[in-house]
Amino acid sequence: MKLTPVGIVHSPFREKFGIPRQPGLIAEVAATIELLPPFNREEAVRGLEGFSHLWLIFGFHAIPPHTGSLTVRPPRLGGNQRVGVFASRSTHRPNPLGLSAVVFVGFEQAAGKVLLKIQGADLLDGTPVYDIKPYLPYADAIPAALGGFADRAPEPQLSVVFSAAADRRCTELETERPQLRALIIAVLALDPRPAFKGEEHERVYGVRLFDLDVRWQVHERCAQVVTIKIFT
Amino acid sequence: MKLTPVGIVHSPFREKFGIPRQPGLIAEVAATIELLPPFNREEAVRGLEGFSHLWLIFGFHAIPPHTGSLTVRPPRLGGNQRVGVFASRSTHRPNPLGLSAVVFVGFEQAAGKVLLKIQGADLLDGTPVYDIKPYLPYADAIPAALGGFADRAPEPQLSVVFSAAADRRCTELETERPQLRALIIAVLALDPRPAFKGEEHERVYGVRLFDLDVRWQVHERCAQVVTIKIFT
Repeated sequence: MKLTPVGIVHSPFREKFGIPRQPGLIAEVAATIELLPPFNREEAVRGLEGFSHLWLIFGFHAIPPHTGSLTVRPPRLGGNQRVGVFASRSTHRPNPLGLSAVVFVGFEQAAGKVLLKIQGADLLDGTPVYDIKPYLPYADAIPAALGGFADRAPEPQLSVVFSAAADRRCTELETERPQLRALIIAVLALDPRPAFKGEEHERVYGVRLFDLDVRWQVHERCAQVVTIKIFT
Repeated sequence: MKLTPVGIVHSPFREKFGIPRQPGLIAEVAATIELLPPFNREEAVRGLEGFSHLWLIFGFHAIPPHTGSLTVRPPRLGGNQRVGVFASRSTHRPNPLGLSAVVFVGFEQAAGKVLLKIQGADLLDGTPVYDIKPYLPYADAIPAALGGFADRAPEPQLSVVFSAAADRRCTELETERPQLRALIIAVLALDPRPAFKGEEHERVYGVRLFDLDVRWQVHERCAQVVTIKIFT
Protein backbone atom coordinates (compact mmCIF):
# COMPACT_ATOMS: atom_id res chain seq x y z
CA MET A 1 0.00 0.00 0.00
CA LYS A 2 1.18 3.51 -0.79
CA LEU A 3 0.27 6.33 1.58
CA THR A 4 -0.22 10.00 0.76
CA PRO A 5 0.14 12.60 3.52
CA VAL A 6 -3.18 14.28 4.34
CA GLY A 7 -1.59 16.80 6.70
CA ILE A 8 1.63 18.05 8.21
CA VAL A 9 2.41 18.80 11.86
CA HIS A 10 3.65 22.15 13.13
CA SER A 11 5.05 21.69 16.63
CA PRO A 12 7.70 23.22 18.92
CA PHE A 13 9.75 20.01 18.71
CA ARG A 14 12.41 20.62 16.08
CA GLU A 15 14.52 17.56 16.86
CA LYS A 16 13.85 14.09 18.22
CA PHE A 17 15.74 14.64 21.46
CA GLY A 18 13.41 15.88 24.20
CA ILE A 19 10.15 14.66 22.70
CA PRO A 20 8.09 12.84 25.33
CA ARG A 21 7.89 9.16 24.53
CA GLN A 22 4.10 9.01 24.54
CA PRO A 23 1.39 11.54 23.76
CA GLY A 24 -0.45 13.22 26.58
CA LEU A 25 2.60 13.39 28.86
CA ILE A 26 3.03 17.06 28.11
CA ALA A 27 -0.36 18.72 28.01
CA GLU A 28 1.46 22.04 27.54
CA VAL A 29 2.48 21.19 23.98
CA ALA A 30 0.23 23.06 21.59
CA ALA A 31 0.61 22.03 17.97
CA THR A 32 -1.33 22.26 14.73
CA ILE A 33 -2.03 19.94 11.83
CA GLU A 34 -2.22 21.70 8.50
CA LEU A 35 -4.38 19.78 6.04
CA LEU A 36 -2.61 19.40 2.71
CA PRO A 37 -4.29 19.80 -0.70
CA PRO A 38 -6.68 18.37 -1.83
CA PHE A 39 -7.79 17.70 1.78
CA ASN A 40 -7.53 21.33 2.93
CA ARG A 41 -11.24 21.99 2.99
CA GLU A 42 -13.45 22.57 5.97
CA GLU A 43 -15.86 19.84 4.90
CA ALA A 44 -13.16 17.19 5.52
CA VAL A 45 -13.40 17.83 9.28
CA ARG A 46 -17.10 18.69 9.54
CA GLY A 47 -18.60 17.04 12.65
CA LEU A 48 -15.25 16.78 14.40
CA GLU A 49 -16.21 19.59 16.78
CA GLY A 50 -18.19 17.10 18.90
CA PHE A 51 -15.07 15.06 19.65
CA SER A 52 -12.54 15.94 22.35
CA HIS A 53 -9.70 13.71 21.13
CA LEU A 54 -8.25 12.50 17.84
CA TRP A 55 -6.15 9.62 16.67
CA LEU A 56 -3.27 10.49 14.41
CA ILE A 57 -1.57 7.88 12.27
CA PHE A 58 1.67 9.48 11.19
CA GLY A 59 5.09 8.73 9.77
CA PHE A 60 8.30 8.58 11.79
CA HIS A 61 9.93 10.65 9.08
CA ALA A 62 13.28 11.47 10.70
CA ILE A 63 14.20 7.85 11.36
CA PRO A 64 16.79 5.87 9.36
CA PRO A 65 15.39 2.95 7.33
CA HIS A 66 14.49 -0.14 9.38
CA THR A 67 17.51 -2.37 9.93
CA GLY A 68 15.39 -5.52 9.87
CA SER A 69 15.91 -6.19 13.57
CA LEU A 70 12.82 -7.75 15.14
CA THR A 71 13.74 -6.60 18.64
CA VAL A 72 14.26 -3.19 20.22
CA ARG A 73 15.55 -1.91 23.58
CA PRO A 74 12.82 0.23 25.12
CA PRO A 75 13.95 3.09 27.39
CA ARG A 76 11.35 1.91 29.91
CA LEU A 77 13.45 -1.19 30.53
CA GLY A 78 16.60 0.86 31.02
CA GLY A 79 17.70 0.54 27.40
CA ASN A 80 19.58 -2.72 27.93
CA GLN A 81 16.85 -5.34 27.59
CA ARG A 82 15.38 -6.43 24.28
CA VAL A 83 11.70 -6.98 23.51
CA GLY A 84 9.93 -7.73 20.25
CA VAL A 85 9.30 -4.77 17.98
CA PHE A 86 5.55 -5.51 18.12
CA ALA A 87 5.66 -5.40 21.95
CA SER A 88 6.98 -1.84 21.78
CA ARG A 89 5.97 1.57 20.50
CA SER A 90 9.54 2.18 19.33
CA THR A 91 10.06 4.30 16.23
CA HIS A 92 12.31 1.57 14.78
CA ARG A 93 9.74 -0.76 13.22
CA PRO A 94 9.06 -2.48 9.91
CA ASN A 95 6.51 0.12 8.79
CA PRO A 96 7.50 3.42 10.43
CA LEU A 97 3.95 4.36 11.47
CA GLY A 98 3.22 6.18 14.71
CA LEU A 99 -0.08 6.32 16.58
CA SER A 100 -1.03 9.08 19.02
CA ALA A 101 -4.19 10.16 20.79
CA VAL A 102 -4.17 13.94 21.15
CA VAL A 103 -6.55 16.56 22.50
CA PHE A 104 -8.58 18.24 19.76
CA VAL A 105 -8.98 21.93 20.53
CA GLY A 106 -10.71 23.09 17.36
CA PHE A 107 -10.02 24.04 13.79
CA GLU A 108 -9.55 27.32 12.02
CA GLN A 109 -9.48 28.45 8.44
CA ALA A 110 -7.04 31.16 7.42
CA ALA A 111 -5.59 32.15 4.06
CA GLY A 112 -6.86 29.02 2.34
CA LYS A 113 -5.45 26.79 5.05
CA VAL A 114 -7.36 24.47 7.37
CA LEU A 115 -5.56 24.05 10.69
CA LEU A 116 -6.48 21.56 13.42
CA LYS A 117 -5.36 22.75 16.82
CA ILE A 118 -4.20 19.94 19.09
CA GLN A 119 -2.54 19.49 22.49
CA GLY A 120 -0.36 16.85 24.08
CA ALA A 121 1.30 15.80 20.84
CA ASP A 122 4.61 13.90 20.96
CA LEU A 123 5.30 14.87 17.37
CA LEU A 124 8.29 16.29 15.58
CA ASP A 125 7.73 19.46 13.58
CA GLY A 126 7.14 18.49 9.95
CA THR A 127 5.70 15.05 10.72
CA PRO A 128 3.54 13.76 7.85
CA VAL A 129 0.05 12.71 8.95
CA TYR A 130 -1.53 9.86 7.01
CA ASP A 131 -4.86 9.61 8.78
CA ILE A 132 -6.97 11.48 11.31
CA LYS A 133 -9.76 9.61 13.07
CA PRO A 134 -12.10 10.60 15.89
CA TYR A 135 -11.37 8.99 19.27
CA LEU A 136 -14.35 6.79 20.18
CA PRO A 137 -14.35 6.30 23.95
CA TYR A 138 -16.67 3.26 23.86
CA ALA A 139 -14.29 1.38 21.56
CA ASP A 140 -10.89 2.93 22.30
CA ALA A 141 -10.84 3.60 26.05
CA ILE A 142 -9.90 0.44 27.92
CA PRO A 143 -8.70 1.72 31.29
CA ALA A 144 -8.47 -1.79 32.76
CA ALA A 145 -6.02 -2.93 30.05
CA LEU A 146 -2.73 -4.36 31.28
CA GLY A 147 0.23 -2.41 29.96
CA GLY A 148 3.02 -4.94 30.49
CA PHE A 149 6.40 -3.33 31.14
CA ALA A 150 4.92 0.11 30.39
CA ASP A 151 1.82 -0.17 32.57
CA ARG A 152 2.13 3.27 34.15
CA ALA A 153 3.03 6.71 32.90
CA PRO A 154 6.67 7.61 33.43
CA GLU A 155 7.07 9.74 36.56
CA PRO A 156 8.80 13.11 36.40
CA GLN A 157 12.46 12.40 37.13
CA LEU A 158 13.99 15.82 37.68
CA SER A 159 13.02 19.07 39.32
CA VAL A 160 13.67 22.04 37.04
CA VAL A 161 15.10 25.44 37.91
CA PHE A 162 16.29 28.40 35.81
CA SER A 163 19.43 30.49 36.20
CA ALA A 164 18.64 34.17 36.76
CA ALA A 165 19.68 34.99 33.19
CA ALA A 166 17.70 32.10 31.66
CA ASP A 167 14.70 33.06 33.74
CA ARG A 168 14.65 36.62 32.35
CA ARG A 169 15.26 35.41 28.80
CA CYS A 170 12.42 32.92 29.07
CA THR A 171 9.98 35.65 30.09
CA GLU A 172 11.03 37.79 27.08
CA LEU A 173 10.83 34.91 24.61
CA GLU A 174 7.51 33.64 25.91
CA THR A 175 5.61 36.56 24.44
CA GLU A 176 5.94 35.00 20.98
CA ARG A 177 6.21 31.36 22.04
CA PRO A 178 3.21 30.59 24.21
CA GLN A 179 3.76 28.49 27.33
CA LEU A 180 7.50 28.30 26.71
CA ARG A 181 8.34 28.03 30.40
CA ALA A 182 5.81 25.30 31.10
CA LEU A 183 7.03 23.43 28.03
CA ILE A 184 10.70 23.57 29.09
CA ILE A 185 9.83 22.42 32.60
CA ALA A 186 7.68 19.56 31.37
CA VAL A 187 10.29 18.36 28.85
CA LEU A 188 13.23 18.45 31.26
CA ALA A 189 11.26 16.96 34.19
CA LEU A 190 10.88 13.74 32.16
CA ASP A 191 14.69 13.60 31.86
CA PRO A 192 15.20 13.18 28.12
CA ARG A 193 18.82 12.07 28.52
CA PRO A 194 19.64 8.65 27.05
CA ALA A 195 19.18 5.63 29.33
CA PHE A 196 22.90 5.19 30.08
CA LYS A 197 23.77 8.45 31.71
CA GLY A 198 27.01 7.81 33.55
CA GLU A 199 28.06 10.51 35.92
CA GLU A 200 28.66 13.54 33.75
CA HIS A 201 27.94 16.26 36.26
CA GLU A 202 29.41 19.12 34.29
CA ARG A 203 27.95 18.19 30.93
CA VAL A 204 25.76 20.80 29.26
CA TYR A 205 22.81 19.35 27.32
CA GLY A 206 20.91 21.17 24.62
CA VAL A 207 17.30 20.70 23.58
CA ARG A 208 15.71 22.50 20.67
CA LEU A 209 12.22 23.93 21.26
CA PHE A 210 10.68 26.25 18.70
CA ASP A 211 13.64 28.19 17.24
CA LEU A 212 15.46 28.07 20.57
CA ASP A 213 18.53 26.27 21.84
CA VAL A 214 17.77 25.55 25.50
CA ARG A 215 20.93 24.58 27.45
CA TRP A 216 20.77 22.79 30.79
CA GLN A 217 22.85 20.85 33.29
CA VAL A 218 21.95 18.20 35.82
CA HIS A 219 23.09 18.18 39.45
CA GLU A 220 21.73 15.31 41.49
CA ARG A 221 18.01 15.15 40.58
CA CYS A 222 17.75 18.78 39.51
CA ALA A 223 17.98 20.20 35.98
CA GLN A 224 19.11 23.82 35.75
CA VAL A 225 18.38 25.79 32.59
CA VAL A 226 21.53 27.86 32.04
CA THR A 227 20.96 29.66 28.72
CA ILE A 228 18.23 30.06 26.09
CA LYS A 229 19.39 31.29 22.70
CA ILE A 230 17.69 31.81 19.36
CA PHE A 231 19.19 29.62 16.63
CA THR A 232 20.57 31.73 13.83
CA MET B 1 5.40 5.94 2.15
CA LYS B 2 5.08 2.34 1.06
CA LEU B 3 3.78 -0.23 3.52
CA THR B 4 4.57 -3.93 3.68
CA PRO B 5 2.15 -6.30 5.45
CA VAL B 6 3.63 -7.77 8.63
CA GLY B 7 0.71 -10.11 9.18
CA ILE B 8 -2.59 -11.38 7.85
CA VAL B 9 -5.89 -11.84 9.70
CA HIS B 10 -7.79 -15.12 9.87
CA SER B 11 -11.33 -14.42 11.05
CA PRO B 12 -14.85 -15.86 10.68
CA PHE B 13 -15.92 -12.75 8.72
CA ARG B 14 -15.69 -13.72 5.05
CA GLU B 15 -17.56 -10.70 3.71
CA LYS B 16 -18.00 -7.09 4.79
CA PHE B 17 -21.73 -7.46 5.51
CA GLY B 18 -22.29 -8.35 9.15
CA ILE B 19 -18.99 -7.11 10.53
CA PRO B 20 -19.57 -5.00 13.63
CA ARG B 21 -18.69 -1.40 12.97
CA GLN B 22 -16.20 -1.06 15.78
CA PRO B 23 -13.94 -3.54 17.55
CA GLY B 24 -14.93 -4.91 20.92
CA LEU B 25 -18.66 -5.01 20.11
CA ILE B 26 -18.51 -8.73 19.64
CA ALA B 27 -16.27 -10.26 22.27
CA GLU B 28 -17.25 -13.67 20.88
CA VAL B 29 -15.19 -13.17 17.73
CA ALA B 30 -11.98 -15.16 18.03
CA ALA B 31 -9.45 -14.46 15.29
CA THR B 32 -5.75 -14.87 14.68
CA ILE B 33 -3.01 -12.79 13.12
CA GLU B 34 -0.44 -14.82 11.26
CA LEU B 35 2.91 -13.03 11.11
CA LEU B 36 4.30 -13.01 7.58
CA PRO B 37 7.95 -13.63 6.67
CA PRO B 38 10.42 -12.23 7.62
CA PHE B 39 8.46 -11.20 10.74
CA ASN B 40 7.26 -14.73 11.60
CA ARG B 41 9.62 -15.23 14.51
CA GLU B 42 8.77 -15.47 18.18
CA GLU B 43 11.27 -12.73 19.05
CA ALA B 44 9.15 -10.16 17.17
CA VAL B 45 6.44 -10.47 19.86
CA ARG B 46 8.63 -11.15 22.91
CA GLY B 47 7.34 -9.18 25.90
CA LEU B 48 3.83 -8.91 24.49
CA GLU B 49 2.54 -11.47 27.01
CA GLY B 50 2.33 -8.71 29.66
CA PHE B 51 -0.20 -6.74 27.61
CA SER B 52 -3.92 -7.48 27.53
CA HIS B 53 -4.78 -5.49 24.39
CA LEU B 54 -3.20 -4.63 21.07
CA TRP B 55 -3.56 -1.95 18.46
CA LEU B 56 -3.77 -3.12 14.91
CA ILE B 57 -3.16 -0.77 12.00
CA PHE B 58 -4.53 -2.60 8.99
CA GLY B 59 -5.66 -2.11 5.43
CA PHE B 60 -9.28 -1.90 4.29
CA HIS B 61 -8.39 -4.28 1.48
CA ALA B 62 -11.83 -5.08 0.10
CA ILE B 63 -12.78 -1.45 -0.51
CA PRO B 64 -12.88 0.24 -3.94
CA PRO B 65 -10.31 3.04 -4.46
CA HIS B 66 -11.15 6.31 -2.71
CA THR B 67 -13.46 8.47 -4.82
CA GLY B 68 -11.91 11.67 -3.54
CA SER B 69 -15.01 12.64 -1.59
CA LEU B 70 -14.11 14.47 1.62
CA THR B 71 -17.41 13.59 3.29
CA VAL B 72 -19.09 10.31 4.25
CA ARG B 73 -22.51 9.27 5.55
CA PRO B 74 -21.98 7.39 8.80
CA PRO B 75 -24.55 4.68 9.65
CA ARG B 76 -24.73 6.17 13.15
CA LEU B 77 -26.44 9.23 11.70
CA GLY B 78 -28.95 7.10 9.83
CA GLY B 79 -26.92 7.06 6.62
CA ASN B 80 -28.42 10.28 5.26
CA GLN B 81 -26.27 12.97 6.87
CA ARG B 82 -22.75 13.84 5.75
CA VAL B 83 -19.74 14.47 7.98
CA GLY B 84 -16.08 15.01 7.14
CA VAL B 85 -14.08 11.89 6.38
CA PHE B 86 -11.71 12.79 9.25
CA ALA B 87 -14.66 13.00 11.66
CA SER B 88 -15.56 9.40 10.86
CA ARG B 89 -14.07 5.93 11.09
CA SER B 90 -15.54 5.08 7.69
CA THR B 91 -13.63 2.67 5.47
CA HIS B 92 -13.89 5.17 2.59
CA ARG B 93 -10.92 7.45 3.32
CA PRO B 94 -7.90 8.92 1.52
CA ASN B 95 -5.49 6.33 2.95
CA PRO B 96 -7.52 3.15 3.56
CA LEU B 97 -6.03 2.43 7.00
CA GLY B 98 -8.08 0.93 9.82
CA LEU B 99 -7.34 1.10 13.53
CA SER B 100 -8.67 -1.40 16.07
CA ALA B 101 -7.98 -2.20 19.71
CA VAL B 102 -8.41 -5.93 20.26
CA VAL B 103 -7.98 -8.33 23.17
CA PHE B 104 -4.65 -10.15 23.06
CA VAL B 105 -5.13 -13.74 24.19
CA GLY B 106 -1.63 -15.09 23.54
CA PHE B 107 0.58 -16.38 20.78
CA GLU B 108 1.47 -19.81 19.56
CA GLN B 109 4.09 -21.26 17.28
CA ALA B 110 3.17 -24.13 15.04
CA ALA B 111 4.70 -25.48 11.83
CA GLY B 112 6.97 -22.47 11.39
CA LYS B 113 4.08 -20.07 11.89
CA VAL B 114 3.69 -17.48 14.64
CA LEU B 115 0.01 -16.84 15.40
CA LEU B 116 -1.34 -14.09 17.66
CA LYS B 117 -4.71 -15.04 19.12
CA ILE B 118 -7.08 -12.08 19.47
CA GLN B 119 -10.71 -11.41 20.39
CA GLY B 120 -13.22 -8.72 19.55
CA ALA B 121 -11.83 -8.03 16.09
CA ASP B 122 -14.01 -6.25 13.52
CA LEU B 123 -11.80 -7.58 10.74
CA LEU B 124 -12.45 -9.26 7.45
CA ASP B 125 -10.70 -12.57 6.84
CA GLY B 126 -7.52 -11.90 4.86
CA THR B 127 -7.04 -8.34 6.13
CA PRO B 128 -3.40 -7.21 5.79
CA VAL B 129 -1.90 -5.94 9.05
CA TYR B 130 0.72 -3.19 8.73
CA ASP B 131 1.56 -2.67 12.37
CA ILE B 132 0.96 -4.23 15.77
CA LYS B 133 1.52 -2.10 18.85
CA PRO B 134 0.88 -2.75 22.53
CA TYR B 135 -2.09 -0.88 24.04
CA LEU B 136 -0.75 1.50 26.70
CA PRO B 137 -3.58 2.32 29.10
CA TYR B 138 -1.87 5.41 30.53
CA ALA B 139 -1.61 6.99 27.07
CA ASP B 140 -4.45 5.39 25.11
CA ALA B 141 -7.35 5.05 27.58
CA ILE B 142 -9.26 8.32 27.80
CA PRO B 143 -12.65 7.27 29.19
CA ALA B 144 -13.76 10.89 29.65
CA ALA B 145 -13.25 11.70 25.97
CA LEU B 146 -16.28 13.10 24.15
CA GLY B 147 -17.30 10.93 21.23
CA GLY B 148 -19.42 13.36 19.23
CA PHE B 149 -22.20 11.70 17.26
CA ALA B 150 -20.79 8.26 18.19
CA ASP B 151 -20.41 8.85 21.91
CA ARG B 152 -21.98 5.55 23.00
CA ALA B 153 -21.74 1.98 21.81
CA PRO B 154 -24.58 0.97 19.50
CA GLU B 155 -27.28 -0.90 21.41
CA PRO B 156 -28.42 -4.34 20.31
CA GLN B 157 -31.36 -3.77 17.97
CA LEU B 158 -32.88 -7.20 17.50
CA SER B 159 -33.61 -10.25 19.58
CA VAL B 160 -32.41 -13.43 17.87
CA VAL B 161 -34.14 -16.83 17.66
CA PHE B 162 -33.42 -20.00 15.66
CA SER B 163 -35.86 -22.19 13.73
CA ALA B 164 -35.87 -25.76 15.02
CA ALA B 165 -33.86 -26.94 11.98
CA ALA B 166 -31.33 -24.10 12.23
CA ASP B 167 -30.98 -24.76 15.93
CA ARG B 168 -30.02 -28.42 15.38
CA ARG B 169 -27.70 -27.54 12.51
CA CYS B 170 -25.95 -24.91 14.59
CA THR B 171 -25.23 -27.44 17.34
CA GLU B 172 -23.71 -29.85 14.80
CA LEU B 173 -21.61 -27.19 13.08
CA GLU B 174 -20.38 -25.67 16.31
CA THR B 175 -18.10 -28.63 17.05
CA GLU B 176 -15.66 -27.36 14.41
CA ARG B 177 -16.51 -23.65 14.58
CA PRO B 178 -16.16 -22.55 18.16
CA GLN B 179 -18.81 -20.23 19.59
CA LEU B 180 -20.78 -20.26 16.36
CA ARG B 181 -24.11 -19.74 18.10
CA ALA B 182 -22.88 -16.84 20.23
CA LEU B 183 -21.31 -15.28 17.15
CA ILE B 184 -24.51 -15.52 15.08
CA ILE B 185 -26.55 -14.03 17.91
CA ALA B 186 -24.11 -11.18 18.47
CA VAL B 187 -23.88 -10.30 14.77
CA LEU B 188 -27.63 -10.33 14.12
CA ALA B 189 -28.50 -8.52 17.38
CA LEU B 190 -26.62 -5.46 16.05
CA ASP B 191 -28.88 -5.53 12.98
CA PRO B 192 -26.37 -5.44 10.12
CA ARG B 193 -29.00 -4.44 7.55
CA PRO B 194 -28.34 -1.19 5.68
CA ALA B 195 -29.64 2.00 7.24
CA PHE B 196 -32.66 2.32 4.93
CA LYS B 197 -34.57 -0.86 5.58
CA GLY B 198 -38.05 -0.23 4.33
CA GLU B 199 -40.65 -2.79 5.31
CA GLU B 200 -39.50 -6.00 3.68
CA HIS B 201 -41.03 -8.48 6.09
CA GLU B 202 -40.57 -11.54 3.95
CA ARG B 203 -37.06 -10.81 2.78
CA VAL B 204 -34.41 -13.43 3.57
CA TYR B 205 -30.99 -11.99 4.41
CA GLY B 206 -27.74 -13.94 4.27
CA VAL B 207 -24.58 -13.40 6.25
CA ARG B 208 -21.39 -15.36 5.71
CA LEU B 209 -19.62 -16.56 8.85
CA PHE B 210 -16.73 -19.03 8.55
CA ASP B 211 -17.64 -21.22 5.56
CA LEU B 212 -21.34 -20.89 6.34
CA ASP B 213 -24.27 -19.17 4.70
CA VAL B 214 -26.53 -18.09 7.57
CA ARG B 215 -30.01 -17.11 6.38
CA TRP B 216 -32.39 -15.05 8.51
CA GLN B 217 -35.57 -13.02 8.40
CA VAL B 218 -36.80 -10.11 10.48
CA HIS B 219 -40.29 -9.84 11.99
CA GLU B 220 -40.85 -6.75 14.09
CA ARG B 221 -37.70 -6.48 16.29
CA CYS B 222 -36.84 -10.17 16.11
CA ALA B 223 -34.38 -11.89 13.76
CA GLN B 224 -35.09 -15.57 13.09
CA VAL B 225 -32.28 -17.77 11.75
CA VAL B 226 -33.99 -20.02 9.21
CA THR B 227 -31.17 -22.06 7.64
CA ILE B 228 -27.42 -22.56 8.01
CA LYS B 229 -25.64 -24.13 5.04
CA ILE B 230 -22.04 -24.85 4.20
CA PHE B 231 -20.89 -22.97 1.09
CA THR B 232 -19.77 -25.39 -1.57
